[in-house]
Amino acid sequence: MYDVVIIGGGPSGLTAAIYASRAGLNALIIEKAGCGGQMAITDALENYPGFSSVNGFELASKLEEQARNFGAAIIYEEVVEISDGAVKKVKTVGAQYETKTIIIASGTNAKKLGAAGEENFIGRGVSFCAVCDAPFYKNKTVAVVGGGDSAIQEAIYLSKFASSVFVLHRRDKLRAAKSLQNKMLSHQNISVIYDVAPEEICGKEKIEKFIISNVKTGEKTDLKVDGIFVFIGLTPNSAFLQYVALDENGYIIADENMKTNIAGIFACGDVRKKHLRQVVTAASDGAQAAVSALDYIEKQGDSLVK
Amino acid sequence: MYDVVIIGGGPSGLTAAIYASRAGLNALIIEKAGCGGQMAITDALENYPGFSSVNGFELASKLEEQARNFGAAIIYEEVVEISDGAVKKVKTVGAQYETKTIIIASGTNAKKLGAAGEENFIGRGVSFCAVCDAPFYKNKTVAVVGGGDSAIQEAIYLSKFASSVFVLHRRDKLRAAKSLQNKMLSHQNISVIYDVAPEEICGKEKIEKFIISNVKTGEKTDLKVDGIFVFIGLTPNSAFLQYVALDENGYIIADENMKTNIAGIFACGDVRKKHLRQVVTAASDGAQAAVSALDYIEKQGDSLVK
Repeated sequence: MYDVVIIGGGPSGLTAAIYASRAGLNALIIEKAGCGGQMAITDALENYPGFSSVNGFELASKLEEQARNFGAAIIYEEVVEISDGAVKKVKTVGAQYETKTIIIASGTNAKKLGAAGEENFIGRGVSFCAVCDAPFYKNKTVAVVGGGDSAIQEAIYLSKFASSVFVLHRRDKLRAAKSLQNKMLSHQNISVIYDVAPEEICGKEKIEKFIISNVKTGEKTDLKVDGIFVFIGLTPNSAFLQYVALDENGYIIADENMKTNIAGIFACGDVRKKHLRQVVTAASDGAQAAVSALDYIEKQGDSLVK
Repeated sequence: MYDVVIIGGGPSGLTAAIYASRAGLNALIIEKAGCGGQMAITDALENYPGFSSVNGFELASKLEEQARNFGAAIIYEEVVEISDGAVKKVKTVGAQYETKTIIIASGTNAKKLGAAGEENFIGRGVSFCAVCDAPFYKNKTVAVVGGGDSAIQEAIYLSKFASSVFVLHRRDKLRAAKSLQNKMLSHQNISVIYDVAPEEICGKEKIEKFIISNVKTGEKTDLKVDGIFVFIGLTPNSAFLQYVALDENGYIIADENMKTNIAGIFACGDVRKKHLRQVVTAASDGAQAAVSALDYIEKQGDSLVK
């Protein structure tokens, strides 16, 4: 039996593992794909305190190493169900793990556009990760949908490969940090088109055109692009949960100590209902979740099954 | 006029500056001594995510550089008063700064023992910083008072200099992380004395003996030590505040978005009433405080004095 099973190996899950293992808890991370979460597909982070600029995958590797050094175990499986009780259970596709506490750090997934034709082109023209796919668009034309930090960061990254980058934003003003907007201005091959929404993605084998419409005038435009990169937000990975309280958008409701409505089950990082989703806030959540799990175990003491 | 004046240059204040400046705000940090706060006097941090082991002063320098790179200014003065209004004011010993928002990140100070004779020896035998003073105790005998992470970390550090280190703890069990306790066991010259409280520090020019008493039996012991290192907790630096709501211990009451009882005044890091005081939680607080300050300024819009 584990002291704590941590669902997800992003910055919050890894930090929870660092803190839990360092405190002497027997900790297991169950990660669906590869460690790092959303961070791992970010080219350059410039606001994680301690690093002027760091590749997300590199930072994820550092956190993973730190967690392993303290003795945390990591397995790669997908969690399908958790159950409460004196002994809690975490079921994956092929196995079941018993634990005293559970920390849910399952993160979020990128939102899709919802445009006609999108599904046909996911993985062959529509991408959610510039770092992964930008090299395929050398000297080609791409669209980036979104107006936040991620969208602008990824547009800048893409501008090193593509000959032309169109940033498409639904509003008349970007949400991204000023410093990022200024950085973007120095890249001549990036243009921003404001007040537009995606309508349809057309093509046979490859994307041939992207039909967008002006949200104020309704006017439609055919944009000739080879690829579309989507950075319009996130969906929390909470569908596998049955008894844990969620908000209307599917984010887990937990207090500042990361306690959910179920004793001994904690939530941290992007999957938690919170104001600011950043690597540093996720890491902080993870540290707190581990300490709360430790407190819970110590308070249970001998009443826990051994 | 500044967009934000940040009081304190520890990890929370520096991270607030990183986030505020990156967002385009005109940010000023006012720091009393040197950047880094409590972190700067920590020899080795092993649980800040991203660094397997890092010197606190070194990490502080990295954060300071990051904040300066985004344009934050830092001045070295002591804040004596703040006042609210459409234009808020931060008074230091010699000057006054006008600002739209204030982020209080003033941290904590180490608690004193309260033992007889202590005041006579502060700075010449009684220390609150092993990294600063350990080299003075080469081949000598020292006592470390406390049982938490800091106490054990500093005892390990001291054991490289002193011939003998006594850890004095008021309870019968240490609070420090298991991994630290195990690490301590590998240092033959560290011994732990449980269930003891400090009574008196005696000596003329130098410390000659440290009288301690067993809290269960009342029995007194004369401990021959050359130095005493105190790591028994913290006092929040909030005495200069007049209208900001504090808890019974002097910590600032702020919500998860770092909002205090006064609009436009935020608190973050160790000075805030919270459960877990760590570098990563302080940094996370700082990021959130900056974003809340930005939100406040944007919502005020033109109603603010320009």
